Amino acid sequence: MVKLKGNLLYGQSGGPTAVINASAYGVIDEARKHPDFIDDVIVMRHGIQGALNEDFFYMSQQTEENIELLKHTPGSAFGSVRHKLPDFREDDTHYLRLLYIFKKHNIRYFLYNGGNDSMDTCSKIADYFDHINYECYIIGVPKTIDNDLPFTDHTPGYGSAAKFIANTMMEISYDMLAYPNGKVTIVEIMGRHAGWLTASSAIASLSGFGPDLIYLPEIPFSIEKFKKDVIEIYEKKKQCLIAVSEGIANEEGIFISSSSGLKDAFGHFQLGGVASKLATTVSADLGIPSRSVEFGSTQRAASHIQSLTDVNEAIEVGRHSVRAAIDKKTNLMVVMHRSSKEEYEIEYKLHALNQCANTEKKVAKSMINSKGNGITKEFLDYVLPLIQGENLPQYKDGIQQFSKIK
Amino acid sequence: MVKLKGNLLYGQSGGPTAVINASAYGVIDEARKHPDFIDDVIVMRHGIQGALNEDFFYMSQQTEENIELLKHTPGSAFGSVRHKLPDFREDDTHYLRLLYIFKKHNIRYFLYNGGNDSMDTCSKIADYFDHINYECYIIGVPKTIDNDLPFTDHTPGYGSAAKFIANTMMEISYDMLAYPNGKVTIVEIMGRHAGWLTASSAIASLSGFGPDLIYLPEIPFSIEKFKKDVIEIYEKKKQCLIAVSEGIANEEGIFISSSSGLKDAFGHFQLGGVASKLATTVSADLGIPSRSVEFGSTQRAASHIQSLTDVNEAIEVGRHSVRAAIDKKTNLMVVMHRSSKEEYEIEYKLHALNQCANTEKKVAKSMINSKGNGITKEFLDYVLPLIQGENLPQYKDGIQQFSKIK
Repeated sequence: MVKLKGNLLYGQSGGPTAVINASAYGVIDEARKHPDFIDDVIVMRHGIQGALNEDFFYMSQQTEENIELLKHTPGSAFGSVRHKLPDFREDDTHYLRLLYIFKKHNIRYFLYNGGNDSMDTCSKIADYFDHINYECYIIGVPKTIDNDLPFTDHTPGYGSAAKFIANTMMEISYDMLAYPNGKVTIVEIMGRHAGWLTASSAIASLSGFGPDLIYLPEIPFSIEKFKKDVIEIYEKKKQCLIAVSEGIANEEGIFISSSSGLKDAFGHFQLGGVASKLATTVSADLGIPSRSVEFGSTQRAASHIQSLTDVNEAIEVGRHSVRAAIDKKTNLMVVMHRSSKEEYEIEYKLHALNQCANTEKKVAKSMINSKGNGITKEFLDYVLPLIQGENLPQYKDGIQQFSKIK
Repeated sequence: MVKLKGNLLYGQSGGPTAVINASAYGVIDEARKHPDFIDDVIVMRHGIQGALNEDFFYMSQQTEENIELLKHTPGSAFGSVRHKLPDFREDDTHYLRLLYIFKKHNIRYFLYNGGNDSMDTCSKIADYFDHINYECYIIGVPKTIDNDLPFTDHTPGYGSAAKFIANTMMEISYDMLAYPNGKVTIVEIMGRHAGWLTASSAIASLSGFGPDLIYLPEIPFSIEKFKKDVIEIYEKKKQCLIAVSEGIANEEGIFISSSSGLKDAFGHFQLGGVASKLATTVSADLGIPSRSVEFGSTQRAASHIQSLTDVNEAIEVGRHSVRAAIDKKTNLMVVMHRSSKEEYEIEYKLHALNQCANTEKKVAKSMINSKGNGITKEFLDYVLPLIQGENLPQYKDGIQQFSKIK
């Protein structure tokens, strides 16, 4: 096989995770091991938008410290983007621009780190370069806290978010025990269509302190059934801890969080999510004191409680994508296969990009209990290996250090 | 001095912290070193209510593991309470009951772990026992994430909450950098009357990633000024991160979070705090996308990111209270003095309980910037020593282990 020498272009896209930068580290570190193929790793600022704007970071110009710190840095260290490319057969202007930039910088390897939509972008660019015969090897690097990419056992980013959620739910649960007559506490967790993150709150129960009720978007949500569930728990325990997906919807598929035309005294429409709405319902309809907690972006950014397994897998997914690209594989995404059910082990493989794009993997029905308000052992067996080990932050003076890529 | 031998009664009261149980550990471990004075440490379930109900845990009957794990356990491991005792001169029924229970169990040392209100309870009991001449030595053990107890440099519980807030704000700030056109993110932090916790968000800025604006309850809040502040930052940075105390109030002292008669479609009054209210204002009045984050109870319960300094001081405060009691000191609270400004060092002293009760220590004006939307270096110099060091959780299978006192 004739060696192809050039630059490797890498970018991040979609919502950040606590370990997407660990994948960047894997890409950068692996690329350095192959100087016969790769001159430099160039990183786009704000994903594909950075390529269109010729707005680049050059990894050969970064300090070792900033590269190493990527393993401990949340967010998207290089900036992210949500930008959907059109079909090149309908509008090829962006593609012509990309081709010009790729040729100008002799980019022969292209790695794109993201979720469903990003894999769509990646696949479209691969199709175009194939169509016009520009030799460039294109690999998708999976990431998403939502864990909804298909054809992979799980997705880097999920394990760390799950670890944060499980440990924080334990803390909230233990905190609630302080008073004899407690409240109904409703915690809102990310996930518009897939309940993987919300389900991970159940891990807390293994410690003896976890949620009493869990509602995922996979099961149609009924307010009446919810009230009955709450009453049943509250009568027994005088308190109730609930984990709820932001994306729960009723039988008709309408989000419970949808605005009900609610305005405040200034005439503004009220923001606010499903948990605060349900807390209001519990207080008003059931007469039980209730409050809501919304984890918000902390759940995807909690670098201070990364899962070591997740970090290592994120790095490995990055490394594997480099090796696949220089091996002249293209239009594929790195996927993770769990090889044995007895002992947790991951094999890294590749899967057609266009099949990975635009499809969401939901929580299997067999992982949800028959009442639709909790999970089964099958889910716990699946999720537990993903949160093992700690990647302790690099604290300096009591606060974390993050990478400052220039 | 004649040695007084008996049991030591300990209890927790008020809102939990991430390290109140470390103080319990300090009390229990120190008491064991003085068998000539103390037979057993008896702990009330749900604070003073447990004494009135004769509902006790006996520390001699606990496993070593559960005692050790107190150093890593958030919440109130023995249950808490909010119960204000009347003046015994007006109504002595509770006091007669306490006297009966204390005599029955030969309780000669009484330690009460809490904030302002708890010190009031503690002081009243001391006054009563002094009045009726029952020999019992009574010491207040300070705790509160709010850091608003007077006569002490700071209060155990504050450092860990500040560490959680600083590190989480860093993560939120870094996460926000992902997109070129960002949002206004408003984070609501605990503190009804004192802004110590909200101020601690400023520590994040030392890493380069922190809040742009900080509003404390010490400064009257003006919505018009707030809007101007937001516009100024947003025009420059295309994003804005704001930390706001739940207790901010306007010139007339009316809480910004006060319900404005807001009802939803079901006719319920809406719950929801000041951050979501301000986010609605930013979106509606300024046309800038905005969202709110409410840390909720996670900020007082985050045992997974305790400050080691805070844990050690919480233990020491517990130990000191035992030594003071067997030294026949009474009606006093343990206070912490910062002895030198050059090198951080704490001396443990005692201060009259009745002076510590019912007074709130606020953030000094010199610690707040002249615009009233940020803090000064004086505050950072004060707070930084309190978040130093890590007390890493005892993880098992990826989740923390908490004490299970029976």
